[in-house]
Amino acid sequence: MLANIPRLQALMKRDNVDAVIATCPENVTYLSGFWAMSQWVRRGPQAYVLFPRESEQPCIIANSGILDLVPDQQPWITEIRRYGYFQTDVDTSAKLDESDRLQQELFRSKAYKDSVDALVAAVKEKGLERATLGIDEMGITPQCMDQLRSALPDAKFLRSFSLFERVRSVKTSGEIEILRNAARATERAIDAAMAGAAEGVTEREMLREFNACLARNDTAPVVGCIGFGARSAMSNVQPSDRKLKRADLIRFDVGGRHRHYRSDMSRGASLGEPSAKVSKYYRAVEKGVLRGYDIIKPGLKVSDLFKEVVATVQREGIPHFKRSHVGHGIGVDGYDPPNIAESSAEVLEEDVVICVETPYYELGFAGLQVEDMIRVTKDGAESLMTLPTALRIL
Amino acid sequence: MLANIPRLQALMKRDNVDAVIATCPENVTYLSGFWAMSQWVRRGPQAYVLFPRESEQPCIIANSGILDLVPDQQPWITEIRRYGYFQTDVDTSAKLDESDRLQQELFRSKAYKDSVDALVAAVKEKGLERATLGIDEMGITPQCMDQLRSALPDAKFLRSFSLFERVRSVKTSGEIEILRNAARATERAIDAAMAGAAEGVTEREMLREFNACLARNDTAPVVGCIGFGARSAMSNVQPSDRKLKRADLIRFDVGGRHRHYRSDMSRGASLGEPSAKVSKYYRAVEKGVLRGYDIIKPGLKVSDLFKEVVATVQREGIPHFKRSHVGHGIGVDGYDPPNIAESSAEVLEEDVVICVETPYYELGFAGLQVEDMIRVTKDGAESLMTLPTALRIL
Repeated sequence: MLANIPRLQALMKRDNVDAVIATCPENVTYLSGFWAMSQWVRRGPQAYVLFPRESEQPCIIANSGILDLVPDQQPWITEIRRYGYFQTDVDTSAKLDESDRLQQELFRSKAYKDSVDALVAAVKEKGLERATLGIDEMGITPQCMDQLRSALPDAKFLRSFSLFERVRSVKTSGEIEILRNAARATERAIDAAMAGAAEGVTEREMLREFNACLARNDTAPVVGCIGFGARSAMSNVQPSDRKLKRADLIRFDVGGRHRHYRSDMSRGASLGEPSAKVSKYYRAVEKGVLRGYDIIKPGLKVSDLFKEVVATVQREGIPHFKRSHVGHGIGVDGYDPPNIAESSAEVLEEDVVICVETPYYELGFAGLQVEDMIRVTKDGAESLMTLPTALRIL
Repeated sequence: MLANIPRLQALMKRDNVDAVIATCPENVTYLSGFWAMSQWVRRGPQAYVLFPRESEQPCIIANSGILDLVPDQQPWITEIRRYGYFQTDVDTSAKLDESDRLQQELFRSKAYKDSVDALVAAVKEKGLERATLGIDEMGITPQCMDQLRSALPDAKFLRSFSLFERVRSVKTSGEIEILRNAARATERAIDAAMAGAAEGVTEREMLREFNACLARNDTAPVVGCIGFGARSAMSNVQPSDRKLKRADLIRFDVGGRHRHYRSDMSRGASLGEPSAKVSKYYRAVEKGVLRGYDIIKPGLKVSDLFKEVVATVQREGIPHFKRSHVGHGIGVDGYDPPNIAESSAEVLEEDVVICVETPYYELGFAGLQVEDMIRVTKDGAESLMTLPTALRIL
């Protein structure tokens, strides 16, 4: 199981929430281990997880059209309610394997009219119709939310997306292992793309190589900002036909999705010797991230991490360096808490996984960025990275 | 411009909508041509397009953190309102190119406090504070919607996601060209993956090859259902370590995203000679799709298309064939209207692009499926496909 259930239960108790309902793809998959394909690839399809705080069993609500994914994925939550019609036939002459037998059983279960109908039935059967229900407001459509409110007039609804985020910020060992693999797959793709660097190669060609290598490492592309020269100063630079020239700075700010978990990292390179300004500024942003490793540990105020990282970049070569944040948590979503900003009231906890980043964008010059994925350990920091942070000379 | 503006204006007039507000990534990109990265890769980040039906100029609302994408993408809507803080420096010694100059100009414009603050200012400046506003309910968070309602107490809000869907269902020539390229890229990836078929190759290895080829054709993977043998009967089969054996049926139901537009198609193959049942059943589902080409034209009732396709599969070899639908529209979303179902009240129009599909799933046996992307022409059907529909013998 990937979800941090004890933390979920503790936060539900703190907020007097009797049950939570996950509705957006990240929270449904996080809480149940069930990857409900349709909601991941489009906005609109509804899948939920109802999780009562105590005693009652949790339950997955899914469209009949994705029931086949249940036996194949074997989520830890085994109570499934389905809705809608989907036609699947059975070869009565064949001996079905266990997965197909379970699928057949699921198709024999009652099909509710729609997602809310199924959810309401589950809420009622668990005696929660007068309870305080924390509903993740980011995946349920407004129409379904209206329907849910009128079907459960005595329930109290609280928006709970932020509660889910708070639970997710402290990772379980299974999640850390996946995040490590996600980071490794992405590093391999950076290596593969940079290996192809040569005069005349375009940003787009480098992205193709990057994404193809991600694919070979079972990772879907999500963020592919790769820019050359002055284009690297565009914070979200989308690869173009701009050709690589000698002494160009190359900025990678990239990430993918591996077994549902995100990677996010940044590295820079130069085709041949960089200018003195690039060297100096890159070293400054690099030292900012490295300073993070010195001070990260449980109990550190996130605002202090922000201040210390920014001050380091300023001291080490970019006196005018300013940022809204110098990183963020990462997990099943690309931005989990904490947001590493001056205004943060949070402190680091063990097994929080964060990206620490110090991008500097200067129009007409370049964008320089180092971003590492870092786990907060019992008494310090563990890098999930293996690539050196230094500017790579190609 | 990709959006069908005359159709949008006509439907707004029909529904007495004075302005629409796009909020979900598909509709923001569709309406403006602006790809607001943050909302495409996560749920939560807010970007909007305000489009008044008459006279007043449309406007994009975007976070300061994605302003760099505006000059690089050059959306046809040029009025931009930004919100939030983002730090970008400028090399005052450099001569900025036009894109950087425009970016600098955007960063000098007023930064609103948040997305709703910026949207409300635009609504008021266009004299729409007492108007009927059609708001796409699928991208705005409930919190932002609450904030919008209280800031505009005299406006009338209508949920307009379905209006956007209806507009999008009839494609412009630019969209058809992109859909054609999306189809071609996906076909190439099917060819590449099938070319690697051999005894012992796993489903996962075939997916890697498929996704890597998509990457080389500037297409992001979205749906990658590839199953061998009895596993192909799982409708959403996710590739596993199952090895390919002689006489295995291979089912591909796959699609990607190319320049923001979706592809979705299905083909089958067999490693060596298929069984008589596979041949017969595959031929039946293939004939169902081919029957679509015979009858598709403007004015055809979608319910008649459904009935005729289903009846053909039944007559040609699967007498018990049943389906909830035999296809759907496709565009910037994977499921645009119409849904090709018996209950549909719609008729086909010229330049609707649909997927026609006849999947048959039989547990313990196999899943057989042909799915083509088809454009409704002035007087018939045009295939966006080049791959033969027949079962491929590998």
